[in-house]
Amino acid sequence: MTQEKIKIGLVGTGRIGAMHAEHLCHRIHRADLAAIVSRSQANAERLAETLGVSKASDQISTILDDPAIDAVAICSSTDTHSEFIIRAAEAGKHIFCEKPIDLDLGRVDQALAAVRSAGVKLQIGFHRRFDPNFQEVEQQVRNGAVGELNLVRITSRDPAPPPLEYIKTSGGLFLDMSIHDFDMARFLVGSEVEEVFAKGTCRTDPAIGEVGDVDTAVIVLTFKDGCMVTIDNCRKSSYGYDQRVEVFGSKGMAWADNNTPHRTGVGNAEGMHTSKPLDFFLERYVDAYLAQMNAFIDSVLKGEEPSVTGIDGRNPVVIALAAKRSMEQGRPVRLSEIEK
Amino acid sequence: MTQEKIKIGLVGTGRIGAMHAEHLCHRIHRADLAAIVSRSQANAERLAETLGVSKASDQISTILDDPAIDAVAICSSTDTHSEFIIRAAEAGKHIFCEKPIDLDLGRVDQALAAVRSAGVKLQIGFHRRFDPNFQEVEQQVRNGAVGELNLVRITSRDPAPPPLEYIKTSGGLFLDMSIHDFDMARFLVGSEVEEVFAKGTCRTDPAIGEVGDVDTAVIVLTFKDGCMVTIDNCRKSSYGYDQRVEVFGSKGMAWADNNTPHRTGVGNAEGMHTSKPLDFFLERYVDAYLAQMNAFIDSVLKGEEPSVTGIDGRNPVVIALAAKRSMEQGRPVRLSEIEK
Amino acid sequence: MTQEKIKIGLVGTGRIGAMHAEHLCHRIHRADLAAIVSRSQANAERLAETLGVSKASDQISTILDDPAIDAVAICSSTDTHSEFIIRAAEAGKHIFCEKPIDLDLGRVDQALAAVRSAGVKLQIGFHRRFDPNFQEVEQQVRNGAVGELNLVRITSRDPAPPPLEYIKTSGGLFLDMSIHDFDMARFLVGSEVEEVFAKGTCRTDPAIGEVGDVDTAVIVLTFKDGCMVTIDNCRKSSYGYDQRVEVFGSKGMAWADNNTPHRTGVGNAEGMHTSKPLDFFLERYVDAYLAQMNAFIDSVLKGEEPSVTGIDGRNPVVIALAAKRSMEQGRPVRLSEIEK
Amino acid sequence: MTQEKIKIGLVGTGRIGAMHAEHLCHRIHRADLAAIVSRSQANAERLAETLGVSKASDQISTILDDPAIDAVAICSSTDTHSEFIIRAAEAGKHIFCEKPIDLDLGRVDQALAAVRSAGVKLQIGFHRRFDPNFQEVEQQVRNGAVGELNLVRITSRDPAPPPLEYIKTSGGLFLDMSIHDFDMARFLVGSEVEEVFAKGTCRTDPAIGEVGDVDTAVIVLTFKDGCMVTIDNCRKSSYGYDQRVEVFGSKGMAWADNNTPHRTGVGNAEGMHTSKPLDFFLERYVDAYLAQMNAFIDSVLKGEEPSVTGIDGRNPVVIALAAKRSMEQGRPVRLSEIEK
Repeated sequence: MTQEKIKIGLVGTGRIGAMHAEHLCHRIHRADLAAIVSRSQANAERLAETLGVSKASDQISTILDDPAIDAVAICSSTDTHSEFIIRAAEAGKHIFCEKPIDLDLGRVDQALAAVRSAGVKLQIGFHRRFDPNFQEVEQQVRNGAVGELNLVRITSRDPAPPPLEYIKTSGGLFLDMSIHDFDMARFLVGSEVEEVFAKGTCRTDPAIGEVGDVDTAVIVLTFKDGCMVTIDNCRKSSYGYDQRVEVFGSKGMAWADNNTPHRTGVGNAEGMHTSKPLDFFLERYVDAYLAQMNAFIDSVLKGEEPSVTGIDGRNPVVIALAAKRSMEQGRPVRLSEIEK
Repeated sequence: MTQEKIKIGLVGTGRIGAMHAEHLCHRIHRADLAAIVSRSQANAERLAETLGVSKASDQISTILDDPAIDAVAICSSTDTHSEFIIRAAEAGKHIFCEKPIDLDLGRVDQALAAVRSAGVKLQIGFHRRFDPNFQEVEQQVRNGAVGELNLVRITSRDPAPPPLEYIKTSGGLFLDMSIHDFDMARFLVGSEVEEVFAKGTCRTDPAIGEVGDVDTAVIVLTFKDGCMVTIDNCRKSSYGYDQRVEVFGSKGMAWADNNTPHRTGVGNAEGMHTSKPLDFFLERYVDAYLAQMNAFIDSVLKGEEPSVTGIDGRNPVVIALAAKRSMEQGRPVRLSEIEK
Repeated sequence: MTQEKIKIGLVGTGRIGAMHAEHLCHRIHRADLAAIVSRSQANAERLAETLGVSKASDQISTILDDPAIDAVAICSSTDTHSEFIIRAAEAGKHIFCEKPIDLDLGRVDQALAAVRSAGVKLQIGFHRRFDPNFQEVEQQVRNGAVGELNLVRITSRDPAPPPLEYIKTSGGLFLDMSIHDFDMARFLVGSEVEEVFAKGTCRTDPAIGEVGDVDTAVIVLTFKDGCMVTIDNCRKSSYGYDQRVEVFGSKGMAWADNNTPHRTGVGNAEGMHTSKPLDFFLERYVDAYLAQMNAFIDSVLKGEEPSVTGIDGRNPVVIALAAKRSMEQGRPVRLSEIEK
Repeated sequence: MTQEKIKIGLVGTGRIGAMHAEHLCHRIHRADLAAIVSRSQANAERLAETLGVSKASDQISTILDDPAIDAVAICSSTDTHSEFIIRAAEAGKHIFCEKPIDLDLGRVDQALAAVRSAGVKLQIGFHRRFDPNFQEVEQQVRNGAVGELNLVRITSRDPAPPPLEYIKTSGGLFLDMSIHDFDMARFLVGSEVEEVFAKGTCRTDPAIGEVGDVDTAVIVLTFKDGCMVTIDNCRKSSYGYDQRVEVFGSKGMAWADNNTPHRTGVGNAEGMHTSKPLDFFLERYVDAYLAQMNAFIDSVLKGEEPSVTGIDGRNPVVIALAAKRSMEQGRPVRLSEIEK
């Protein structure tokens, strides 16, 4: 008899962790959330109680040592990802892990090696691949409606920067924010990046510059098949969360506009007025987060490879490191330089 | 201590009933679905098993006689609504009932009288009032952005007609389909209709005409405050489910466009191509159905009057009966004629 | 050798007359404006001087008696139209005449009879038929993209009412403003109206009601082929000149949105803001006015029947008279009643 | 008494020259076209006859030696621009000249020096600055609606590449096509470029690569004030002429979409279908070409500096040369390197 449900333990009770926990309890029916782990025992207990989850702990071993648990969802801070992946793989648990795997390419590779030798499934949390807009654009590319891809434009702007404390340990704009766009570029183009050129500046808050980061960036990716991708990022957009893509090829163009909370407008003596984009990622991507987790559960239940693999988690890190070096050195950087 | 959850019994396991049951079990957290009743015992049991509901029956008394159950959701066929409302009221249960209350105005009034004397809450299933698009338009009207209302346009077209068997007992286009638009007109204008002029024809399928109904209609409502509303309906729209409104007043206009499955498009040598509207009501209005049921649970828990009352269930029936007479007699009909 | 140019005399130096005169002098190359006539000699002379036209007069005979002049453009006030048509026809001049031919159906028929017996060309100034938007919609109807027409919606709202003095002699909203929409309905549906139902109220300025007119109206036209058309009109729209149509048929829908001065927008913390429609008819329809006059010149030069004929001038008057009676008597009125 | 009209001589009877000649004769009232010059006497005579211009010649001296002529419009091939500017300046004629001034920066500077010492007006034909869409966006930037500019995106794609013969002598994509976008970037940002990074490939036709040019490019401009601009170009767009800009700043965003031939659409079982952009530059920018020439005439009549000056003609050439070097050397190039 085929297994119909899996048991999942979840690590991390921040915004993303709490959302996944809530989804696993109320909106996803082929998984039971069996344990919640947080670095704070109190936080773990509070969330577990709210959701009626039986186990709460401040030790990931609570999940890893429980033979009844099939998989772990790693939603803790970035600096714990690679270690938890390795420990979970060694414990034979399937792994869903939020991006990025690690800020250090060596540790990324150690984590992927552990996954490989354990033979467990690993899916990286690039949820935007599961968004209906971007899926539709990717579908149009795959079915040939756009022809051979020549140019891609990705716009990704946040409504407001995260707290400075977060930025300090985030690895910088490219590893923290642009990394989603690097994944989107790979997803849409369906090939690998060869060269990166990045420019970044600090325009919205001097404090971001003082901790060594930028808040506004333009990136040009050149893919092996010749397709060129421009990405523009900003940490602060007055009109809200801006998430658009456009692909241009020999036969046509496909685009995705922003989602909005409603499709209404008002016309008056000042003009015609419509809604700002849906704000922020938890609202904008709620369906994508659900679809992503269901896909992970699917791949565990069916024993199939996840659609977003360890390589899909690794390569955007390489691109981000190349972008960082490009900005620092004021020249295009080939990925092969980073791999050395 | 305040009650935090209510127990609900549900009658009717058709499309709408099954949807409400699923929502009550998985997506609504302040209610427990305690019993499922269907005219077919087998259907009741099948749905109850799928959702893990403990009681299943072919008798509404299973719900009404259970002192632990606070409320009943009536999703059975229209001809049972008024009887079930009366019985539920007499049993002291709060009532959520799908539209219409009844096709006969006398029975509508009997049902409302029973509710009144029992002092229970009654909410009628005009879910479109809970749709984010229409709520936003109504909000703009209420906050004065549109000024004094002069004209309203409502377009409501279905992707395909229901089965002929359904049409035969539906009460006709005005009582079955336009009734939602009559409610929407009252919701947006915030006043009562005085006169109705209706024209209807059979354009999409002669079989609909043979059973005495029309499939295409235009209706002009004149409200007591002078606002004029045009409604156009069709049972068959090639481009899918069309649900738009526009209100025009002294200060401006507000409109709601259709929702679409995604915000993407393709441009090619033939032009620019975007998505058809979201299809059909279960998809288009899923958030509205959820918000509606949560509002009902709220009003029960707080002991407050529902936002969609018995009068809101009754008046569209009067308008529909006036529309029917207008079409039959080829003249505008005042609501006062129907009330006699 | 074929004639390559015609000589035109123009009567009327109001806004529309001045525009046609300017077009004939500067933007239309197959006609020479040979004479300008106005009820005021001074106005005729002033315009003639500005445009370099050699003849100016306060007598239409200046045009009609000049054997070198081929055609007359009648842009004077409505009460002169039928008389000038008759005199021009008797003088053997081809006639372009602004709408309406006359407010009295008897005089309309006398004018058409004069045209017929003289064998001259008569084109009525329903310029909207030459607008690229409405032409494209009509094209889609004719090429079958919409299938059999079921419903048409026409929205026509002015930015501001004309002076009260104008309204007093205009014949009322239906004969002055809605008449363009009646023509548009006939143009799009391609068949004749059978019945009219009209409701009108005075909402924007009580002074309009005091002179016996309405400023806001809803009209339902039923065509012989069963297609139903709703028209909504208002003399005052806060967001400007609103000129939209939508046709709905068995295979699809076609629509025309408003033109705007530019295709730009601004997004900020308050939302996304775009432009109001192009304001007012002289700007909105400048290309249509040009195309209309070129079509008239074409039909004179080629000896072909104009695309907007005397019947196209007459039938909207009948519809307007039926709308007036419908509103006065509170019932639908068949066109056959007006013809009696 | 102030002069009310100027006399213009025009050189060049290609597509652009013929358009300007037609405008000067029929649509622009403050100028007389006094002479037409072409390298082919026959072409000059043919166009002069069609438009009723009295003088036709194959020698620019026909214009320059005529003391009655105030200004010359240079619409001949690029390799003649700088020489004709110098000769016209020496003859004391005001000059309107199509872009680019020259492909060689030294000759550009000689031409500008001649203009300076003669004290004549020189306006360069960057017509897009006069387009209502781009003017509105620039206006929003100037009036502060966008705040401090952070990012600009310019998309400029042609429907089809020009003939190979044209491409061979065009100076390449950056000097021929992107130059308009470089001007647009300067126009919108209102500051000067510091650094250019350009990538180009040959994607649409290998023959373009064989003559040493590219047909697809991405360019990143960094302005002195820190604003970053991305431009994407392609010689071949399946859905037609794509001309969009978007500016993003601290307070908001402003954008310009494409113009379309009409504002209509069709909805059917396949989706919703609207129009491709207006095609090609003569149609898309007809109003801009007119406004540009009127602005030139204005500045001559009023003795004021044109709004698009010699420096505005020179600096995009510098940017284009930097883009070329950037692409060839695979690194960002500072404008100061080109100036050396």
